[in-house]
Amino acid sequence: MGVSTVRLIALDWGTSSLRAYSMGDSGSVLEARTLPLGVMVLAQLLDQSTNEDTDTIFCRAFEKACGDWLQSSPAAPIIASGMIGSSQGWHETPYLTVPISIARFDTALTKFKASAGRVIHIVPGLIENSELPNVMRGEETQVVGALSLMARECPNQPELGNEVLVGMPGTHSKWVFVRDDDIIHFETFMTGEIYAALGSHTILSRTARPAAEPDYAAFDRGVRVARSSAGNDGILSTVFSARTLVLTGVLMPEQQPDYLSGLLVGAEIASLLRPRIHETFPRIGTNRFILLVGNTALCLRYVRALAENGIENVRFVTNATEHGLWKLAVQAGLVS
Amino acid sequence: MGVSTVRLIALDWGTSSLRAYSMGDSGSVLEARTLPLGVMVLAQLLDQSTNEDTDTIFCRAFEKACGDWLQSSPAAPIIASGMIGSSQGWHETPYLTVPISIARFDTALTKFKASAGRVIHIVPGLIENSELPNVMRGEETQVVGALSLMARECPNQPELGNEVLVGMPGTHSKWVFVRDDDIIHFETFMTGEIYAALGSHTILSRTARPAAEPDYAAFDRGVRVARSSAGNDGILSTVFSARTLVLTGVLMPEQQPDYLSGLLVGAEIASLLRPRIHETFPRIGTNRFILLVGNTALCLRYVRALAENGIENVRFVTNATEHGLWKLAVQAGLVS
Repeated sequence: MGVSTVRLIALDWGTSSLRAYSMGDSGSVLEARTLPLGVMVLAQLLDQSTNEDTDTIFCRAFEKACGDWLQSSPAAPIIASGMIGSSQGWHETPYLTVPISIARFDTALTKFKASAGRVIHIVPGLIENSELPNVMRGEETQVVGALSLMARECPNQPELGNEVLVGMPGTHSKWVFVRDDDIIHFETFMTGEIYAALGSHTILSRTARPAAEPDYAAFDRGVRVARSSAGNDGILSTVFSARTLVLTGVLMPEQQPDYLSGLLVGAEIASLLRPRIHETFPRIGTNRFILLVGNTALCLRYVRALAENGIENVRFVTNATEHGLWKLAVQAGLVS
Repeated sequence: MGVSTVRLIALDWGTSSLRAYSMGDSGSVLEARTLPLGVMVLAQLLDQSTNEDTDTIFCRAFEKACGDWLQSSPAAPIIASGMIGSSQGWHETPYLTVPISIARFDTALTKFKASAGRVIHIVPGLIENSELPNVMRGEETQVVGALSLMARECPNQPELGNEVLVGMPGTHSKWVFVRDDDIIHFETFMTGEIYAALGSHTILSRTARPAAEPDYAAFDRGVRVARSSAGNDGILSTVFSARTLVLTGVLMPEQQPDYLSGLLVGAEIASLLRPRIHETFPRIGTNRFILLVGNTALCLRYVRALAENGIENVRFVTNATEHGLWKLAVQAGLVS
């Protein structure tokens, strides 16, 4: 077995997870690790601790994620995106302001001296200063990766045009409007986190049972309710039906979680289909190209919900984060 | 000091709290108690317990709430409304189906033999079997009390007419449409419970600090966002601004909880202002009479949110529950 040289250590330090990649030539992933050491987890550890500071707690997570790589490849540069640069992260870094050209991300990397003199290059997050400001940290890297992967895999895509809507379902779903390699607008939906909070910390937990398999019929039912006139009343009202449909025997307790998922994902999609506030955006229609990035099982739910709303022009990209981190490292001259 | 005879022991056994009233002549409240022993709390105790059953756990709560009254007034009848009659309660009782005349509640009381041969008369909950079924347990008693109090206090109220919308803000807000003493439709919004879940179990908890006093300016701001075109995107999207407005220094961490409250209460009101699905209801407008029932501080928030939406014709009723329990006991012949 030949030994591959580690060219880059890349971190995707999110809210709930810390993902670490050791990357070889041309950005090939030599090894990938996922640790449940996201920024919110560490912030809770910090809250509970009486004698440890932010630096100690983040440093330990960092060593756990890639200490062995750091030791065996001391020359490999380190790049990181995500919540590591947030006010609850390890080292707060400034946002770049939207609209912005993707080409400008690389020059805005923050050099942060972490443990043992190691420098972590932190990718800036983005902010959109509208009436309701929006922020992201990490998703900008996924957008870079996703667009680059698409361009590489489908060099001639007439349907792509110069406008793409990139959807990143997750704890906090982001929808990013890209035009000519500029990010011109984005929105956040706290769908994943609200789903978890509703399922675990409200009365809905009393009538639900976990399902062995996803129940897509229950999910689709939720999506249809979300786009119906009843759904127009919003989720404060519709989510109560997750309880009453079980109480009345229409849904099985095992179907409730997927129905609730459909209500929320459906509400997110229905909201995106409304005319945008931001006047520079045309309404999303059947002819708009959508690129989905993220967890496969979750993206498949969004594909279903989009189809239920008549939108079929959807592509799905995997490994956008690590590819984006590599691409930004190349652009910044950290790797060649 | 004269000793008043206990005529009725009345229980309002809700999701989070158990309220007990000993009542004297004409329904005067001799003593009132609130215990944190709601049905969901007891259900959690039951989940955690290895050797106690439903009956043991509810019986202990019952004795704690009114054991001394039961002993000193063995002849006093007992009436109870709320989640005690739910599938997670002490004794499941059937719902009455909406539309229904309020006059029919009393004949539908369920006699339940509780501990030591004591009979509890359980008030039936209501169900509305629409596409998204709706249920209530306890609020029907508040409606009875509120309408009776209004009729007594303002016998000639031209503006009341024959249609009243009764709003009961809370963990699960209920809005009940009453016409000529018939309950013809009702809706549920999980506003209070979702507010608590968002504030404690999502990333919003990271940027919030508790406030010493309610910040109505922050609350009103949330209400205005909810009724703006941005609010039209729904709370999955707008609640994220509770975080970003703090991150960008527009809101203080102490203002975030009230801003979030405004976003949610505002979304609930905005939803009610949309044309109703239920065709028998005219749209709520400035000329519709609204009766608010419940916690005073919370009702004041709803008064503000309604006013922000141009609705001023609002009355506020306190003590509707105990009055409703008394009235139903009188109607059923338990007390004279």
